[in-house]
Amino acid sequence: MAKTVNVLPFAALSVDGGSPVPLYRQLYESLREAILSGRLAPGTRLASTREVAAELGVSRNTVTNAFEQLLAEGYVESRTGSGTYVSKSLPDELLDARARLTRRVRFERKGRGLSARGEALAKMQFKADCPALGPARPFRLGPAMDAFPFQTWQRIVTRHWQRPQRSLMGYGDPAGYPPLREAVASYLGAARAVRCTPEQVIIVAGTQQAIDLVGRVLLDPGDVAWVEEYSYPAARGALAAAGARLVPVPVDEEGLNVCQAAARAPGARLVYVSPSHQYPLGVTLSLARRLALLEWAARAGAWVLEDDYDSEFRYAGRPLAAMQGLDTGGRVIYLGTFSKVLFPSLRLGYMVVPPDMADAFTTARALVGWCSPLVDQAVLTEFIAEGHFARHIRRMRALYAGRQAALVEAAGRELRGVLEVGPDEAGMHLLGWLPEGVDDREAARAAAQYGVQAQPLSYFAVEHNRRGALVLGYAAHEEREIREAVGRMAAALRGVTARARRKVC
Amino acid sequence: MAKTVNVLPFAALSVDGGSPVPLYRQLYESLREAILSGRLAPGTRLASTREVAAELGVSRNTVTNAFEQLLAEGYVESRTGSGTYVSKSLPDELLDARARLTRRVRFERKGRGLSARGEALAKMQFKADCPALGPARPFRLGPAMDAFPFQTWQRIVTRHWQRPQRSLMGYGDPAGYPPLREAVASYLGAARAVRCTPEQVIIVAGTQQAIDLVGRVLLDPGDVAWVEEYSYPAARGALAAAGARLVPVPVDEEGLNVCQAAARAPGARLVYVSPSHQYPLGVTLSLARRLALLEWAARAGAWVLEDDYDSEFRYAGRPLAAMQGLDTGGRVIYLGTFSKVLFPSLRLGYMVVPPDMADAFTTARALVGWCSPLVDQAVLTEFIAEGHFARHIRRMRALYAGRQAALVEAAGRELRGVLEVGPDEAGMHLLGWLPEGVDDREAARAAAQYGVQAQPLSYFAVEHNRRGALVLGYAAHEEREIREAVGRMAAALRGVTARARRKVC
Repeated sequence: MAKTVNVLPFAALSVDGGSPVPLYRQLYESLREAILSGRLAPGTRLASTREVAAELGVSRNTVTNAFEQLLAEGYVESRTGSGTYVSKSLPDELLDARARLTRRVRFERKGRGLSARGEALAKMQFKADCPALGPARPFRLGPAMDAFPFQTWQRIVTRHWQRPQRSLMGYGDPAGYPPLREAVASYLGAARAVRCTPEQVIIVAGTQQAIDLVGRVLLDPGDVAWVEEYSYPAARGALAAAGARLVPVPVDEEGLNVCQAAARAPGARLVYVSPSHQYPLGVTLSLARRLALLEWAARAGAWVLEDDYDSEFRYAGRPLAAMQGLDTGGRVIYLGTFSKVLFPSLRLGYMVVPPDMADAFTTARALVGWCSPLVDQAVLTEFIAEGHFARHIRRMRALYAGRQAALVEAAGRELRGVLEVGPDEAGMHLLGWLPEGVDDREAARAAAQYGVQAQPLSYFAVEHNRRGALVLGYAAHEEREIREAVGRMAAALRGVTARARRKVC
Repeated sequence: MAKTVNVLPFAALSVDGGSPVPLYRQLYESLREAILSGRLAPGTRLASTREVAAELGVSRNTVTNAFEQLLAEGYVESRTGSGTYVSKSLPDELLDARARLTRRVRFERKGRGLSARGEALAKMQFKADCPALGPARPFRLGPAMDAFPFQTWQRIVTRHWQRPQRSLMGYGDPAGYPPLREAVASYLGAARAVRCTPEQVIIVAGTQQAIDLVGRVLLDPGDVAWVEEYSYPAARGALAAAGARLVPVPVDEEGLNVCQAAARAPGARLVYVSPSHQYPLGVTLSLARRLALLEWAARAGAWVLEDDYDSEFRYAGRPLAAMQGLDTGGRVIYLGTFSKVLFPSLRLGYMVVPPDMADAFTTARALVGWCSPLVDQAVLTEFIAEGHFARHIRRMRALYAGRQAALVEAAGRELRGVLEVGPDEAGMHLLGWLPEGVDDREAARAAAQYGVQAQPLSYFAVEHNRRGALVLGYAAHEEREIREAVGRMAAALRGVTARARRKVC
């Protein structure tokens, strides 16, 4: 028989009544560590629960609980009438291994075996400079939260939880809540001339998830994708994370230049494009270019990923219909989001896929997290069905038009010579162009010091090769706030511009 | 000048007042199609809005709207004092291309250029036979919805929407709502002996999303992953979709057999394991095996993906602490979900990653859909903080113990000879073993005909090589329902068993 010493090293045990960790758990962990490190050898008899309780000044129940846990996990064994012993069935080599492991607790990620794509992913940093995070001050991008009909939303939410439907509590269809898919299909048909059945609509957790799914279902590592030279970095990130080789394509006044794209990378498998209102430059893809892009996609068997992120907000003229409605070859994947028309934290968006692709995308949607929260989907469906959605868009269109006008007017008055801000027929942001030679990151930093958030255009660039500019979200901010912020912006930019001029001289 | 014919083929235009599509949109689409197909040639003058309105019997405003849309999109041009003409700036070759495209509207996915991984993905079918979908009849898997404190939940939800915090409406931290991460860290420390700070906790849309993230951050295509020979198919699907080569590992009464795994595939980069309560076999991974697995992972620089999906429900003995708490090499990724303790459609779960991995996983989480809905996260945080979470778990533990006992008792009485159902110290389901020679899919089909849902064990198998069995979820069903269903199950299985015996003879 192995050594049986009637000793328990009380000094090595400690429990802290002020800790949030339960006392029994603290005691259990101390004992386990003592066993694994070898300080309590196999076969050692532990003191009785009464003795341990008295020594540590804890209740006997606490000690019993700790012992029971050790017993359940096999660290100790109980012999009738004789007491509790450190288990002998723990093979020595495992104890040694544990002791060795215990010594090297600190580690660095470097060389810890992230996958190659994991390493690439770890290098992408979106969080730090995401234009949508941080305090809600001008000119942060995003929709108006001061004008959202929260009371209406609350009424629908409360109604749902008062009489919860059991069918909305379990696992739903990965493609989305069927009534929401119907509502989206009918909305898109009427508002965007998208041609689809509800079966083609997949509900996702926002555009970001849709792009990720597209990258995985339609691209293999090494496949080439065209992206607009200025575009949303996290969208490019999702395609890059899927292994795509991204080729930036110049954007001119007609939008993405299809000829140049074809010349640069004729073998591309996909183009990611924001035709209604290029993000962030704001131009509209011309009809000729749209047709050329669809023609190319049909001929090449490639895919058009159409991001229609803010088409609801057009203030002059009629919105151009979606490219999806022009596509007869089944090459367009259409993306839309509720983040811009309702609120971002809802995390609901949709994609419209060709009919023969719906199954593949549904399976992919299931694999990346099954489905979106069902009650949120049901609430949104009612919000649409009761007409609140259409009404909210109409109200926001008027509100945002006024906010844009306020920004243009204030900028014309106060930013002359330091920032050139022109109107836009659509969208929720404007570009403000800086004088030649002024670095937009420096300008954004200066603005931040004056309490103004302005995303530098270069943030969106694959390769920044234009005049510096600031991207100014106006939708989320009251006209009064906008005017005030323009004043502070003027002070900030005058300093930056003067410094830049001195450098040139 | 090109031909200018003062003709509009009214016959080709049609609008339908009963359609949900607005009249102007119908007219616009008819005209656009006529232009693109060449039926209306470039340079053709359109009839006046008044003439078209009269001919079609619609308001002039409808026609004006349709014309304006065509104008905005460049299909027609307006010449002052002269009327509206089909645009000549549409290059002929584009029109030809359109005509060609229009002819082949039908297509099949086959050969349409899904990526290789997309094709593999499309072949995975989870939806059709998912054990958690379909009507909520016994013995569907999942938690009790009849016992959820919906009133409490509703009270918290309503409170949130009554005074909505603006900070909860925008884009949140991709790693999760900070107070929820704190609540999870402290819960896991106390209940599961998980050692972590809130910074190591990443909130995800359920275990499925976590596995997908792990596959992408930690595995490269072709990497080998060990999986338990019986396990959750969608979990394996997520790893396979990440390009992992899955090697099934035998499970015995001590759980996953580490020695056999190392012999079969020594170069594995990851093991996916459910140590607390193997899914679906129900065994617990022994302490010796846990230590061996951690030792292997530390030595090989491999990863242990610990799925702790239902550890809250243990009815006898104490639950074994999580492997994560034993891991000193930082090789364990710990996964948990609120789908089993609260309700699945909430779509919230969490992963605990080594401290040096938190950044990479946060970036990955952002790329696949940014963050989980913020209000849902905030409501859950309060549900935990106010003690409802702990109380609900305690109540469910008692309730489920009773339901399990009812199932075992009824099965012992009525299923003798056709299904062998023993008790389990933990979990939300039991295995019922069929007589030798009875196919479990056939048994499940027979049960379904009697209104009873019973998932065949073979559904969970990589390679099915055991006696047939049925997986019976009891947590979601009242004892009365359980007893009734057992009666119907008996009738169903007697038929199947008799048929199987006749085949053998």
